Amino acid sequence: MRPLVAVDWGTSALRAARIAPDGAVLEERASTRGILGVPAGGFPAVLAETCGEWLGDAVALCLVSGMAGSRQGWREAPYLACPAGFPELAGGLLWIEQGRIALVPGLSCEADGVPDVIRGEEVQVFGALDLLQRDEGTFVLPGTHSKWVQVRDGRVQSFATFMTGEVYALLRQHSILARMMPPQDDPHDDEAFVRGVRHAQEARGLLHGAFSARTLALFDRMPAAALPSYLSGLVIGEELRMREDAAGPVVLVGSPGLTQRYGLALHALDREARSIGAEATWRGLWALARTLEE
Amino acid sequence: MRPLVAVDWGTSALRAARIAPDGAVLEERASTRGILGVPAGGFPAVLAETCGEWLGDAVALCLVSGMAGSRQGWREAPYLACPAGFPELAGGLLWIEQGRIALVPGLSCEADGVPDVIRGEEVQVFGALDLLQRDEGTFVLPGTHSKWVQVRDGRVQSFATFMTGEVYALLRQHSILARMMPPQDDPHDDEAFVRGVRHAQEARGLLHGAFSARTLALFDRMPAAALPSYLSGLVIGEELRMREDAAGPVVLVGSPGLTQRYGLALHALDREARSIGAEATWRGLWALARTLEE
Repeated sequence: MRPLVAVDWGTSALRAARIAPDGAVLEERASTRGILGVPAGGFPAVLAETCGEWLGDAVALCLVSGMAGSRQGWREAPYLACPAGFPELAGGLLWIEQGRIALVPGLSCEADGVPDVIRGEEVQVFGALDLLQRDEGTFVLPGTHSKWVQVRDGRVQSFATFMTGEVYALLRQHSILARMMPPQDDPHDDEAFVRGVRHAQEARGLLHGAFSARTLALFDRMPAAALPSYLSGLVIGEELRMREDAAGPVVLVGSPGLTQRYGLALHALDREARSIGAEATWRGLWALARTLEE
Repeated sequence: MRPLVAVDWGTSALRAARIAPDGAVLEERASTRGILGVPAGGFPAVLAETCGEWLGDAVALCLVSGMAGSRQGWREAPYLACPAGFPELAGGLLWIEQGRIALVPGLSCEADGVPDVIRGEEVQVFGALDLLQRDEGTFVLPGTHSKWVQVRDGRVQSFATFMTGEVYALLRQHSILARMMPPQDDPHDDEAFVRGVRHAQEARGLLHGAFSARTLALFDRMPAAALPSYLSGLVIGEELRMREDAAGPVVLVGSPGLTQRYGLALHALDREARSIGAEATWRGLWALARTLEE
Protein backbone atom coordinates (compact mmCIF):
# COMPACT_ATOMS: atom_id res chain seq x y z
CA MET A 1 0.00 0.00 0.00
CA ARG A 2 1.01 3.63 -0.57
CA PRO A 3 1.52 6.18 2.20
CA LEU A 4 -1.70 8.07 2.95
CA VAL A 5 -2.37 11.71 3.68
CA ALA A 6 -5.77 11.62 5.39
CA VAL A 7 -7.69 14.89 5.63
CA ASP A 8 -10.87 15.60 7.59
CA TRP A 9 -12.01 18.99 6.28
CA GLY A 10 -15.09 20.25 8.03
CA THR A 11 -17.02 23.48 8.27
CA SER A 12 -14.91 25.11 10.96
CA ALA A 13 -11.77 22.95 11.24
CA LEU A 14 -9.20 21.13 9.16
CA ARG A 15 -7.35 18.08 10.48
CA ALA A 16 -4.75 16.03 8.63
CA ALA A 17 -2.74 12.90 9.36
CA ARG A 18 0.15 11.12 7.72
CA ILE A 19 -0.55 7.40 7.82
CA ALA A 20 1.85 4.54 7.18
CA PRO A 21 0.94 1.68 4.82
CA ASP A 22 0.20 -0.51 7.87
CA GLY A 23 -2.33 2.02 9.22
CA ALA A 24 -0.13 3.58 11.90
CA VAL A 25 -0.77 7.32 12.38
CA LEU A 26 2.71 8.90 12.10
CA GLU A 27 1.85 12.57 12.56
CA GLU A 28 -1.23 14.78 12.97
CA ARG A 29 -1.94 18.45 12.30
CA ALA A 30 -4.95 20.66 12.87
CA SER A 31 -5.97 24.17 11.91
CA THR A 32 -9.01 26.40 12.07
CA ARG A 33 -9.13 26.70 8.27
CA GLY A 34 -12.52 25.00 7.94
CA ILE A 35 -14.26 25.44 4.59
CA LEU A 36 -16.04 28.59 5.78
CA GLY A 37 -12.58 30.20 6.19
CA VAL A 38 -11.32 29.30 2.71
CA PRO A 39 -11.83 31.81 -0.13
CA ALA A 40 -13.06 30.58 -3.53
CA GLY A 41 -10.25 28.75 -5.29
CA GLY A 42 -8.15 28.71 -2.13
CA PHE A 43 -8.42 25.02 -1.28
CA PRO A 44 -5.19 23.80 -2.94
CA ALA A 45 -3.16 26.52 -1.20
CA VAL A 46 -4.63 25.79 2.25
CA LEU A 47 -3.99 22.07 1.78
CA ALA A 48 -0.39 22.79 0.73
CA GLU A 49 0.14 25.06 3.76
CA THR A 50 -1.17 22.37 6.08
CA CYS A 51 0.60 19.30 4.76
CA GLY A 52 2.45 20.24 1.57
CA GLU A 53 5.62 18.34 2.38
CA TRP A 54 3.66 15.13 3.06
CA LEU A 55 2.19 15.48 -0.43
CA GLY A 56 5.72 15.97 -1.78
CA ASP A 57 6.07 12.19 -1.50
CA ALA A 58 5.39 11.27 -5.13
CA VAL A 59 3.62 8.00 -4.29
CA ALA A 60 1.42 9.39 -1.49
CA LEU A 61 -2.35 9.18 -1.83
CA CYS A 62 -4.49 11.98 -0.34
CA LEU A 63 -8.13 11.34 0.67
CA VAL A 64 -10.25 14.24 1.89
CA SER A 65 -13.53 13.65 3.74
CA GLY A 66 -16.07 16.08 5.17
CA MET A 67 -17.65 19.30 3.97
CA ALA A 68 -14.77 20.02 1.57
CA GLY A 69 -16.74 17.76 -0.80
CA SER A 70 -19.95 19.78 -0.45
CA ARG A 71 -21.39 22.46 -2.71
CA GLN A 72 -19.85 25.11 -0.44
CA GLY A 73 -16.46 23.33 -0.42
CA TRP A 74 -13.60 22.59 -2.81
CA ARG A 75 -15.74 20.77 -5.34
CA GLU A 76 -19.00 18.89 -4.97
CA ALA A 77 -18.69 15.13 -4.66
CA PRO A 78 -22.38 14.20 -5.07
CA TYR A 79 -24.09 12.18 -2.33
CA LEU A 80 -24.19 8.41 -2.94
CA ALA A 81 -27.51 6.70 -2.29
CA CYS A 82 -27.61 4.07 0.48
CA PRO A 83 -26.93 1.21 0.88
CA ALA A 84 -23.25 2.01 0.45
CA GLY A 85 -20.02 0.40 1.65
CA PHE A 86 -16.35 0.66 0.80
CA PRO A 87 -16.77 -0.36 -2.88
CA GLU A 88 -19.44 2.28 -3.51
CA LEU A 89 -17.46 4.94 -1.65
CA ALA A 90 -14.30 4.09 -3.62
CA GLY A 91 -16.27 4.24 -6.88
CA GLY A 92 -17.75 7.60 -5.94
CA LEU A 93 -14.48 9.41 -5.18
CA LEU A 94 -14.14 12.76 -6.91
CA TRP A 95 -10.55 12.97 -8.11
CA ILE A 96 -8.96 16.41 -7.92
CA GLU A 97 -5.75 14.90 -9.30
CA GLN A 98 -6.38 11.48 -10.80
CA GLY A 99 -4.93 8.76 -8.58
CA ARG A 100 -3.43 11.32 -6.19
CA ILE A 101 -5.96 13.55 -4.40
CA ALA A 102 -9.67 12.73 -4.02
CA LEU A 103 -12.75 14.01 -2.21
CA VAL A 104 -14.83 11.34 -0.46
CA PRO A 105 -18.56 11.60 -1.27
CA GLY A 106 -21.24 11.84 1.40
CA LEU A 107 -24.26 9.53 1.55
CA SER A 108 -27.98 10.12 1.18
CA CYS A 109 -30.99 8.06 2.15
CA GLU A 110 -34.75 8.55 2.12
CA ALA A 111 -37.35 8.02 4.85
CA ASP A 112 -40.93 9.20 5.24
CA GLY A 113 -40.73 10.89 1.85
CA VAL A 114 -37.80 13.17 2.65
CA PRO A 115 -34.07 12.77 2.05
CA ASP A 116 -31.37 12.82 4.69
CA VAL A 117 -27.64 13.41 4.19
CA ILE A 118 -24.34 12.64 5.87
CA ARG A 119 -20.89 13.88 4.90
CA GLY A 120 -17.78 13.01 6.86
CA GLU A 121 -19.36 10.92 9.61
CA GLU A 122 -19.77 7.97 7.19
CA VAL A 123 -15.96 7.67 7.11
CA GLN A 124 -15.91 7.45 10.91
CA VAL A 125 -18.52 4.69 10.78
CA PHE A 126 -16.43 2.70 8.31
CA GLY A 127 -13.38 3.27 10.51
CA ALA A 128 -15.26 2.02 13.57
CA LEU A 129 -16.37 -1.08 11.64
CA ASP A 130 -12.76 -1.76 10.69
CA LEU A 131 -11.47 -1.18 14.21
CA LEU A 132 -14.13 -3.44 15.72
CA GLN A 133 -13.87 -6.02 12.94
CA ARG A 134 -17.63 -5.88 12.52
CA ASP A 135 -19.97 -5.53 9.57
CA GLU A 136 -23.17 -4.44 11.30
CA GLY A 137 -24.52 -2.36 14.16
CA THR A 138 -26.04 0.95 15.22
CA PHE A 139 -23.54 3.80 15.27
CA VAL A 140 -24.18 7.15 16.94
CA LEU A 141 -22.06 10.19 16.08
CA PRO A 142 -22.96 12.99 18.49
CA GLY A 143 -22.42 16.60 17.54
CA THR A 144 -24.00 19.77 16.23
CA HIS A 145 -26.00 17.42 14.01
CA SER A 146 -26.00 13.93 15.52
CA LYS A 147 -26.16 10.99 13.14
CA TRP A 148 -27.64 7.56 13.87
CA VAL A 149 -26.33 5.11 11.30
CA GLN A 150 -27.56 1.56 10.64
CA VAL A 151 -25.03 -0.83 9.14
CA ARG A 152 -25.66 -4.35 7.81
CA ASP A 153 -23.42 -6.52 5.64
CA GLY A 154 -20.70 -3.88 5.80
CA ARG A 155 -22.92 -1.26 4.17
CA VAL A 156 -24.68 1.80 5.57
CA GLN A 157 -28.34 0.90 5.08
CA SER A 158 -29.90 4.08 6.45
CA PHE A 159 -29.26 6.92 8.87
CA ALA A 160 -31.03 9.85 10.49
CA THR A 161 -29.90 13.33 11.49
CA PHE A 162 -30.80 15.00 14.80
CA MET A 163 -30.13 18.73 15.27
CA THR A 164 -29.26 18.10 18.91
CA GLY A 165 -26.13 20.20 19.41
CA GLU A 166 -27.52 23.08 17.41
CA VAL A 167 -30.87 23.16 19.21
CA TYR A 168 -29.07 23.01 22.56
CA ALA A 169 -26.95 26.02 21.58
CA LEU A 170 -30.02 27.97 20.38
CA LEU A 171 -31.92 27.31 23.61
CA ARG A 172 -28.83 27.91 25.75
CA GLN A 173 -27.92 31.22 24.12
CA HIS A 174 -31.00 32.80 22.59
CA SER A 175 -34.17 31.50 24.28
CA ILE A 176 -36.06 32.64 27.35
CA LEU A 177 -34.25 29.81 29.20
CA ALA A 178 -30.93 31.58 28.66
CA ARG A 179 -32.05 34.44 30.89
CA MET A 180 -32.10 32.20 33.95
CA MET A 181 -28.67 30.67 33.29
CA PRO A 182 -25.14 31.83 34.16
CA PRO A 183 -23.35 33.36 31.16
CA GLN A 184 -20.63 30.69 31.26
CA ASP A 185 -21.22 26.95 31.54
CA ASP A 186 -20.17 25.76 34.99
CA PRO A 187 -18.50 22.36 35.29
CA HIS A 188 -20.83 19.69 34.02
CA ASP A 189 -23.38 18.59 36.64
CA ASP A 190 -23.99 14.87 36.07
CA GLU A 191 -26.97 14.69 38.43
CA ALA A 192 -28.82 17.56 36.75
CA PHE A 193 -27.90 16.11 33.34
CA VAL A 194 -29.41 12.70 34.16
CA ARG A 195 -32.51 14.39 35.58
CA GLY A 196 -32.92 16.12 32.21
CA VAL A 197 -32.43 12.85 30.33
CA ARG A 198 -35.15 11.19 32.41
CA HIS A 199 -37.57 14.09 32.16
CA ALA A 200 -37.21 14.04 28.38
CA GLN A 201 -38.63 10.49 28.38
CA GLU A 202 -41.72 11.68 30.28
CA ALA A 203 -42.23 14.95 28.40
CA ARG A 204 -42.13 13.07 25.08
CA GLY A 205 -41.18 16.18 23.13
CA LEU A 206 -38.77 19.04 23.57
CA LEU A 207 -41.29 21.85 22.88
CA HIS A 208 -42.88 21.02 26.23
CA GLY A 209 -39.96 19.41 28.05
CA ALA A 210 -37.57 22.34 27.63
CA PHE A 211 -39.95 24.66 29.48
CA SER A 212 -39.25 22.70 32.66
CA ALA A 213 -35.81 24.36 32.77
CA ARG A 214 -37.66 27.64 33.28
CA THR A 215 -40.22 26.50 35.81
CA LEU A 216 -37.78 24.51 37.98
CA ALA A 217 -35.69 27.66 38.29
CA LEU A 218 -38.78 29.83 38.84
CA PHE A 219 -39.81 27.70 41.84
CA ASP A 220 -36.22 27.49 43.17
CA ARG A 221 -36.15 23.75 42.59
CA MET A 222 -32.93 23.81 40.60
CA PRO A 223 -29.98 26.19 41.05
CA ALA A 224 -29.08 28.37 38.06
CA ALA A 225 -25.62 26.78 37.85
CA ALA A 226 -27.20 23.35 37.18
CA LEU A 227 -29.54 24.53 34.42
CA PRO A 228 -27.13 24.22 31.45
CA SER A 229 -26.40 20.57 32.33
CA TYR A 230 -30.11 19.91 32.88
CA LEU A 231 -30.93 21.42 29.49
CA SER A 232 -28.19 19.35 27.87
CA GLY A 233 -29.81 16.26 29.40
CA LEU A 234 -33.24 17.30 28.10
CA VAL A 235 -32.00 17.71 24.53
CA ILE A 236 -29.79 14.59 24.40
CA GLY A 237 -32.52 12.67 26.24
CA GLU A 238 -35.01 13.72 23.56
CA GLU A 239 -32.69 12.36 20.85
CA LEU A 240 -32.46 9.05 22.73
CA ARG A 241 -36.24 8.96 23.24
CA MET A 242 -36.73 9.26 19.50
CA ARG A 243 -34.45 6.25 19.05
CA GLU A 244 -35.77 4.25 21.99
CA ASP A 245 -36.50 1.33 19.68
CA ALA A 246 -32.98 1.12 18.23
CA ALA A 247 -31.99 -2.53 18.56
CA GLY A 248 -29.08 -3.74 20.67
CA PRO A 249 -26.11 -1.85 22.09
CA VAL A 250 -24.99 1.22 20.16
CA VAL A 251 -21.47 2.27 19.27
CA LEU A 252 -20.71 5.91 20.08
CA VAL A 253 -18.12 7.49 17.83
CA GLY A 254 -16.59 10.88 18.57
CA SER A 255 -14.64 13.03 20.99
CA PRO A 256 -14.35 11.77 24.60
CA GLY A 257 -16.38 14.67 26.04
CA LEU A 258 -19.45 13.98 23.92
CA THR A 259 -19.30 10.18 23.89
CA GLN A 260 -18.97 10.16 27.69
CA ARG A 261 -22.02 12.37 27.99
CA TYR A 262 -24.07 10.18 25.64
CA GLY A 263 -22.78 7.10 27.44
CA LEU A 264 -24.01 8.49 30.75
CA ALA A 265 -27.42 9.25 29.23
CA LEU A 266 -27.75 5.77 27.70
CA HIS A 267 -26.69 4.17 30.97
CA ALA A 268 -29.36 6.16 32.85
CA LEU A 269 -31.92 4.64 30.46
CA ASP A 270 -30.52 1.11 30.96
CA ARG A 271 -29.20 0.97 27.43
CA GLU A 272 -25.81 -0.41 26.48
CA ALA A 273 -23.14 1.48 24.61
CA ARG A 274 -19.45 1.35 23.81
CA SER A 275 -17.29 4.20 22.56
CA ILE A 276 -14.71 4.75 19.86
CA GLY A 277 -12.66 7.93 19.62
CA ALA A 278 -11.70 10.26 16.83
CA GLU A 279 -9.15 7.70 15.56
CA ALA A 280 -12.10 6.26 13.62
CA THR A 281 -11.69 8.97 10.98
CA TRP A 282 -8.11 8.05 10.16
CA ARG A 283 -8.92 4.35 10.24
CA GLY A 284 -11.86 4.88 7.88
CA LEU A 285 -9.80 6.78 5.33
CA TRP A 286 -7.00 4.23 5.61
CA ALA A 287 -9.44 1.35 5.09
CA LEU A 288 -10.88 3.18 2.08
CA ALA A 289 -7.36 3.59 0.63
CA ARG A 290 -6.82 -0.15 1.17
CA THR A 291 -10.01 -0.83 -0.80
CA LEU A 292 -8.61 1.18 -3.71
CA GLU A 293 -5.60 -1.11 -3.95
CA GLU A 294 -7.50 -4.36 -3.77
CA MET B 1 -72.23 45.80 38.70
CA ARG B 2 -69.58 48.51 38.58
CA PRO B 3 -67.95 49.76 35.41
CA LEU B 4 -64.75 47.82 34.66
CA VAL B 5 -61.37 48.92 33.40
CA ALA B 6 -59.88 45.69 32.05
CA VAL B 7 -56.13 45.61 31.45
CA ASP B 8 -54.10 42.93 29.70
CA TRP B 9 -50.49 43.82 30.54
CA GLY B 10 -48.02 41.52 28.89
CA THR B 11 -44.29 41.41 28.32
CA SER B 12 -44.21 43.59 25.23
CA ALA B 13 -47.68 45.17 25.01
CA LEU B 14 -50.35 46.80 27.10
CA ARG B 15 -54.03 46.69 26.15
CA ALA B 16 -56.92 48.21 28.05
CA ALA B 17 -60.70 48.27 27.65
CA ARG B 18 -63.54 50.16 29.29
CA ILE B 19 -66.34 47.69 29.87
CA ALA B 20 -69.97 48.46 30.74
CA PRO B 21 -71.72 46.64 33.62
CA ASP B 22 -73.52 44.46 31.04
CA GLY B 23 -70.19 43.32 29.53
CA ALA B 24 -70.24 45.53 26.44
CA VAL B 25 -66.77 46.75 25.40
CA LEU B 26 -67.13 50.54 25.12
CA GLU B 27 -63.61 51.53 24.17
CA GLU B 28 -60.19 49.91 23.67
CA ARG B 29 -56.64 51.22 23.82
CA ALA B 30 -53.27 49.63 23.17
CA SER B 31 -49.65 50.64 23.63
CA THR B 32 -46.21 49.10 23.38
CA ARG B 33 -45.53 49.76 27.08
CA GLY B 34 -45.23 46.07 27.99
CA ILE B 35 -43.65 45.33 31.37
CA LEU B 36 -40.17 45.17 29.82
CA GLY B 37 -40.59 48.83 28.86
CA VAL B 38 -41.68 50.04 32.30
CA PRO B 39 -39.00 51.29 34.74
CA ALA B 40 -39.09 50.17 38.37
CA GLY B 41 -41.93 51.96 40.16
CA GLY B 42 -43.32 53.24 36.87
CA PHE B 43 -46.41 51.05 36.65
CA PRO B 44 -48.95 53.50 38.20
CA ALA B 45 -47.79 56.28 35.85
CA VAL B 46 -48.01 54.10 32.72
CA LEU B 47 -51.48 52.90 33.73
CA ALA B 48 -52.57 56.51 34.31
CA GLU B 49 -51.19 57.60 30.92
CA THR B 50 -53.04 54.78 29.19
CA CYS B 51 -56.46 55.02 30.83
CA GLY B 52 -56.28 57.56 33.65
CA GLU B 53 -59.60 59.22 32.88
CA TRP B 54 -61.42 55.86 32.91
CA LEU B 55 -60.06 55.33 36.41
CA GLY B 56 -61.32 58.81 37.35
CA ASP B 57 -64.74 57.20 37.62
CA ALA B 58 -64.85 56.76 41.41
CA VAL B 59 -66.83 53.53 41.27
CA ALA B 60 -64.81 51.86 38.51
CA LEU B 61 -63.01 48.59 39.24
CA CYS B 62 -59.68 47.88 37.51
CA LEU B 63 -58.47 44.29 36.95
CA VAL B 64 -55.02 43.70 35.46
CA SER B 65 -54.03 40.31 34.02
CA GLY B 66 -50.80 39.09 32.46
CA MET B 67 -47.13 39.51 33.26
CA ALA B 68 -47.74 42.72 35.25
CA GLY B 69 -48.45 40.29 38.10
CA SER B 70 -45.13 38.48 37.74
CA ARG B 71 -41.88 38.92 39.65
CA GLN B 72 -40.62 41.18 36.84
CA GLY B 73 -43.86 43.21 36.81
CA TRP B 74 -45.71 45.67 39.02
CA ARG B 75 -45.93 43.38 42.02
CA GLU B 76 -45.94 39.60 42.24
CA ALA B 77 -49.34 37.95 42.51
CA PRO B 78 -48.21 34.40 43.40
CA TYR B 79 -49.35 31.52 41.20
CA LEU B 80 -52.46 29.67 42.40
CA ALA B 81 -52.30 25.89 42.36
CA CYS B 82 -54.77 24.07 40.09
CA PRO B 83 -57.59 23.19 40.10
CA ALA B 84 -58.74 26.80 40.05
CA GLY B 85 -61.88 28.58 38.85
CA PHE B 86 -63.46 31.99 39.29
CA PRO B 87 -63.77 31.73 43.11
CA GLU B 88 -60.08 30.82 43.54
CA LEU B 89 -58.98 33.53 41.08
CA ALA B 90 -61.13 36.14 42.88
CA GLY B 91 -59.70 35.05 46.23
CA GLY B 92 -56.14 35.27 44.92
CA LEU B 93 -56.33 38.83 43.58
CA LEU B 94 -53.47 41.05 44.69
CA TRP B 95 -55.00 44.42 45.52
CA ILE B 96 -52.88 47.44 44.63
CA GLU B 97 -55.68 49.69 45.95
CA GLN B 98 -58.13 47.71 48.02
CA GLY B 99 -61.40 47.24 46.16
CA ARG B 100 -60.21 49.41 43.26
CA ILE B 101 -57.18 48.03 41.36
CA ALA B 102 -56.04 44.40 41.46
CA LEU B 103 -53.56 42.11 39.75
CA VAL B 104 -54.94 38.74 38.67
CA PRO B 105 -52.74 35.78 39.75
CA GLY B 106 -51.46 33.19 37.32
CA LEU B 107 -51.90 29.45 37.84
CA SER B 108 -49.47 26.61 38.45
CA CYS B 109 -49.80 22.86 38.10
CA GLU B 110 -47.47 19.90 38.41
CA ALA B 111 -46.87 16.96 36.06
CA ASP B 112 -44.08 14.38 35.82
CA GLY B 113 -42.41 15.95 38.84
CA VAL B 114 -42.03 19.44 37.41
CA PRO B 115 -44.19 22.55 37.71
CA ASP B 116 -45.78 24.47 34.85
CA VAL B 117 -47.11 28.02 34.90
CA ILE B 118 -49.59 30.21 33.07
CA ARG B 119 -50.21 33.92 33.53
CA GLY B 120 -52.72 35.84 31.46
CA GLU B 121 -53.95 33.02 29.24
CA GLU B 122 -56.04 31.61 32.13
CA VAL B 123 -58.23 34.74 31.91
CA GLN B 124 -58.80 34.05 28.21
CA VAL B 125 -59.84 30.50 29.02
CA PHE B 126 -62.37 31.71 31.57
CA GLY B 127 -63.63 34.23 29.03
CA ALA B 128 -64.02 31.52 26.42
CA LEU B 129 -65.94 29.37 28.91
CA ASP B 130 -68.27 32.28 29.63
CA LEU B 131 -68.75 33.11 25.95
CA LEU B 132 -69.47 29.46 25.08
CA GLN B 133 -71.56 28.88 28.23
CA ARG B 134 -69.50 25.79 28.96
CA ASP B 135 -67.74 24.45 32.02
CA GLU B 136 -65.34 21.96 30.44
CA GLY B 137 -63.16 21.34 27.42
CA THR B 138 -59.66 21.49 25.98
CA PHE B 139 -58.48 25.02 25.22
CA VAL B 140 -55.45 25.84 23.10
CA LEU B 141 -53.84 29.29 23.24
CA PRO B 142 -51.20 29.48 20.50
CA GLY B 143 -48.30 31.88 20.78
CA THR B 144 -44.64 32.28 21.68
CA HIS B 145 -45.44 29.79 24.43
CA SER B 146 -48.59 27.84 23.53
CA LYS B 147 -50.79 26.67 26.36
CA TRP B 148 -53.03 23.58 26.36
CA VAL B 149 -55.57 23.93 29.16
CA GLN B 150 -57.90 21.24 30.51
CA VAL B 151 -61.10 22.48 32.14
CA ARG B 152 -63.65 20.43 34.07
CA ASP B 153 -66.45 21.63 36.37
CA GLY B 154 -65.60 25.24 35.54
CA ARG B 155 -62.06 24.88 36.90
CA VAL B 156 -58.69 24.64 35.20
CA GLN B 157 -57.54 21.15 36.16
CA SER B 158 -54.16 21.15 34.43
CA PHE B 159 -52.29 22.68 31.54
CA ALA B 160 -49.05 22.35 29.62
CA THR B 161 -46.74 24.86 27.96
CA PHE B 162 -45.16 24.37 24.53
CA MET B 163 -42.35 26.67 23.38
CA THR B 164 -43.68 26.52 19.82
CA GLY B 165 -43.51 30.13 18.69
CA GLU B 166 -40.15 30.70 20.30
CA VAL B 167 -38.57 27.56 18.83
CA TYR B 168 -39.93 28.48 15.40
CA ALA B 169 -38.33 31.91 15.66
CA LEU B 170 -34.99 30.45 16.81
CA LEU B 171 -34.88 27.95 13.94
CA ARG B 172 -36.15 30.53 11.44
CA GLN B 173 -33.63 33.21 12.39
CA HIS B 174 -30.56 31.59 13.94
CA SER B 175 -30.23 27.96 12.79
CA ILE B 176 -28.59 26.37 9.76
CA LEU B 177 -32.10 26.25 8.24
CA ALA B 178 -32.23 30.05 8.18
CA ARG B 179 -29.41 30.12 5.61
CA MET B 180 -31.61 28.47 2.98
CA MET B 181 -34.59 30.77 3.56
CA PRO B 182 -35.48 34.20 2.18
CA PRO B 183 -34.78 37.00 4.70
CA GLN B 184 -38.46 38.00 4.76
CA ASP B 185 -41.38 35.63 5.18
CA ASP B 186 -43.26 35.36 1.91
CA PRO B 187 -47.04 35.10 2.00
CA HIS B 188 -48.03 31.99 3.91
CA ASP B 189 -47.93 28.84 1.76
CA ASP B 190 -50.75 26.59 3.00
CA GLU B 191 -49.61 23.57 1.00
CA ALA B 192 -46.05 23.66 2.35
CA PHE B 193 -47.44 24.31 5.84
CA VAL B 194 -49.66 21.23 5.75
CA ARG B 195 -46.80 19.14 4.37
CA GLY B 196 -44.78 20.21 7.41
CA VAL B 197 -47.65 19.34 9.77
CA ARG B 198 -47.91 15.86 8.25
CA HIS B 199 -44.18 15.24 8.25
CA ALA B 200 -44.03 16.14 11.95
CA GLN B 201 -46.35 13.19 12.66
CA GLU B 202 -43.95 10.81 10.88
CA ALA B 203 -40.71 12.28 12.25
CA ARG B 204 -42.06 12.01 15.81
CA GLY B 205 -39.68 14.65 17.12
CA LEU B 206 -38.49 18.04 15.97
CA LEU B 207 -34.74 17.37 16.44
CA HIS B 208 -34.98 15.06 13.44
CA GLY B 209 -38.02 16.46 11.63
CA ALA B 210 -36.67 20.01 11.34
CA PHE B 211 -33.65 18.79 9.38
CA SER B 212 -36.00 17.92 6.51
CA ALA B 213 -36.32 21.66 5.80
CA ARG B 214 -32.63 21.59 4.94
CA THR B 215 -32.54 18.41 2.88
CA LEU B 216 -35.69 19.17 0.86
CA ALA B 217 -34.06 22.46 -0.16
CA LEU B 218 -30.68 20.79 -0.78
CA PHE B 219 -32.28 18.37 -3.26
CA ASP B 220 -34.42 21.10 -4.87
CA ARG B 221 -37.60 19.43 -3.70
CA MET B 222 -38.99 22.56 -2.07
CA PRO B 223 -38.49 26.17 -3.17
CA ALA B 224 -36.79 28.50 -0.70
CA ALA B 225 -39.88 30.73 -0.55
CA ALA B 226 -41.97 27.82 0.81
CA LEU B 227 -39.51 26.84 3.55
CA PRO B 228 -40.71 29.24 6.29
CA SER B 229 -44.30 27.94 5.95
CA TYR B 230 -43.03 24.35 5.88
CA LEU B 231 -40.99 24.95 9.04
CA SER B 232 -44.01 26.56 10.71
CA GLY B 233 -45.97 23.40 9.85
CA LEU B 234 -43.23 21.20 11.30
CA VAL B 235 -43.16 23.05 14.62
CA ILE B 236 -46.93 23.44 15.05
CA GLY B 237 -47.37 19.85 13.82
CA GLU B 238 -44.96 18.68 16.52
CA GLU B 239 -47.04 20.45 19.17
CA LEU B 240 -50.18 18.72 17.87
CA ARG B 241 -48.40 15.34 17.73
CA MET B 242 -47.53 15.69 21.41
CA ARG B 243 -51.20 16.26 22.12
CA GLU B 244 -52.53 13.66 19.69
CA ASP B 245 -54.45 11.97 22.51
CA ALA B 246 -56.27 15.15 23.62
CA ALA B 247 -59.93 14.13 23.81
CA GLY B 248 -62.66 15.69 21.66
CA PRO B 249 -62.68 18.94 19.68
CA VAL B 250 -60.41 21.70 20.97
CA VAL B 251 -61.22 25.39 21.34
CA LEU B 252 -58.56 27.69 19.87
CA VAL B 253 -58.31 31.06 21.59
CA GLY B 254 -56.25 33.89 20.16
CA SER B 255 -55.62 36.21 17.24
CA PRO B 256 -57.19 35.25 13.89
CA GLY B 257 -53.82 34.69 12.18
CA LEU B 258 -52.65 32.08 14.65
CA THR B 259 -55.96 30.35 15.31
CA GLN B 260 -56.53 29.99 11.54
CA ARG B 261 -53.10 28.41 11.16
CA TYR B 262 -53.73 25.98 14.03
CA GLY B 263 -57.20 25.28 12.64
CA LEU B 264 -55.67 24.36 9.27
CA ALA B 265 -53.16 22.06 10.97
CA LEU B 266 -55.85 20.33 13.07
CA HIS B 267 -58.06 19.91 10.01
CA ALA B 268 -55.17 18.28 8.11
CA LEU B 269 -54.97 15.73 10.94
CA ASP B 270 -58.76 15.14 10.90
CA ARG B 271 -59.19 16.79 14.26
CA GLU B 272 -61.99 19.17 15.11
CA ALA B 273 -61.56 22.71 16.38
CA ARG B 274 -63.47 25.94 16.84
CA SER B 275 -62.00 29.37 17.40
CA ILE B 276 -62.57 32.30 19.73
CA GLY B 277 -60.87 35.66 19.26
CA ALA B 278 -59.10 38.09 21.54
CA GLU B 279 -62.46 39.22 22.98
CA ALA B 280 -62.03 36.30 25.38
CA THR B 281 -59.66 38.39 27.50
CA TRP B 282 -62.21 41.16 28.14
CA ARG B 283 -64.94 38.64 28.74
CA GLY B 284 -62.77 36.77 31.23
CA LEU B 285 -61.95 39.87 33.25
CA TRP B 286 -65.60 40.97 33.15
CA ALA B 287 -66.77 37.55 34.34
CA LEU B 288 -64.20 37.69 37.13
CA ALA B 289 -65.49 41.14 38.16
CA ARG B 290 -69.00 39.68 38.18
CA THR B 291 -67.79 36.94 40.53
CA LEU B 292 -66.49 39.59 42.94
CA GLU B 293 -69.95 41.08 43.27
CA GLU B 294 -71.78 37.82 43.81
